[in-house]
Amino acid sequence: MRNAFHEQLDLIAAELTAMAQMVQTAVQQATTALLNADRALAEQVISADPQIDQLQRLVEEQTFDQLARQQPVASDLRILVATLRIVTELERMGDLAEHVAKVARMRYPDIAVPVDLRPTFAEMGELARRMVGMVRDNFVGRDVTAAEQLMEMDDKMDELRSSIFRVMLADEWTDGVEAAVDVALLGRYYERIADHSVSTARRVIYLVTGSYPEDDDDSRY
Amino acid sequence: MRNAFHEQLDLIAAELTAMAQMVQTAVQQATTALLNADRALAEQVISADPQIDQLQRLVEEQTFDQLARQQPVASDLRILVATLRIVTELERMGDLAEHVAKVARMRYPDIAVPVDLRPTFAEMGELARRMVGMVRDNFVGRDVTAAEQLMEMDDKMDELRSSIFRVMLADEWTDGVEAAVDVALLGRYYERIADHSVSTARRVIYLVTGSYPEDDDDSRY
Repeated sequence: MRNAFHEQLDLIAAELTAMAQMVQTAVQQATTALLNADRALAEQVISADPQIDQLQRLVEEQTFDQLARQQPVASDLRILVATLRIVTELERMGDLAEHVAKVARMRYPDIAVPVDLRPTFAEMGELARRMVGMVRDNFVGRDVTAAEQLMEMDDKMDELRSSIFRVMLADEWTDGVEAAVDVALLGRYYERIADHSVSTARRVIYLVTGSYPEDDDDSRY
Repeated sequence: MRNAFHEQLDLIAAELTAMAQMVQTAVQQATTALLNADRALAEQVISADPQIDQLQRLVEEQTFDQLARQQPVASDLRILVATLRIVTELERMGDLAEHVAKVARMRYPDIAVPVDLRPTFAEMGELARRMVGMVRDNFVGRDVTAAEQLMEMDDKMDELRSSIFRVMLADEWTDGVEAAVDVALLGRYYERIADHSVSTARRVIYLVTGSYPEDDDDSRY
């Protein structure tokens, strides 16, 4: 019975990993679609999102099932409870990638991001992609240092976002209101993907150590 | 033993209700602070947020404790698992109210929202406040119709947000890029408060019926 249970836990962990992989792909493709006005790729991200949602439901049901049937204690219980939270975070990260793809689609054939800011968004996209990858690897390793690294990467994301505000609010901004609105929201989406990565990592730390690392959300917005 | 357990469930429910009340106050005060450039009130919302976060930790710990000690089944298990999710949603709603208050504080003594859009934001703020109130009452009643009503209110919120975009992207916008950025993000914060309300309500429906109502997120952004 214990063996079957641990096989189920392994299955759930594998599904979480698969889900994180799908989210990572969505983040990467959404950024590419955004910066190249690639409509087909944007559509691909948008149409793939329901698969992420389905996987969320599946993992939630299986996790709930294990809680109900096995009435686990100690670390097994902790893992299952953390799974419920992590799966929610991943689903939101997928939604945010979809939001980025929707902006790309809405502005097609134009590129939503003004040319001067494209390197910054490329960097934010790459940072977000790497963070999701670390979240994925973190399930497997439950590596506390990886979680700390994610928090540092989140600071970098906040800096990038601040630099966008500085550009937009400078007198030289000539790209108009529409571009400013797009850029403000896109910046928010990437920042949130980073936040969710950190939040997931904090869950993993909690899983390992039984206590939470401190939060430091001091963003201006 | 069962009685002590159900007393604990009642305590957790009361704490959730208190937390929802604090979030509702935060949403109302943040809107007032925003539309009146009331810096003291904005500070109050910002400094109250850690109390919401503390309550989240407390409820999470108590819920986890009950899961570990009582190994509940069926509807008790469902309630505890839903609690873990709801408490996360409420915490986020509190953060979003804090974000609104931070914009109010950042633009003080100016009012961040241009005069023409203030009635729309007043309406969004009031809608968000009512939605949080329904979430709070919904824990107690577990009322499926309330959850459906929340979904209709969410559609109304999306309409209000769309109307803001129409105003901002019209040629007559003379309020500049900074105001547009503020308004775009503020609109997003209120929309997310509404989304979290619906998400919480969907959890409650799941709690009552054992199956999820369908989602219909077809926002442009």
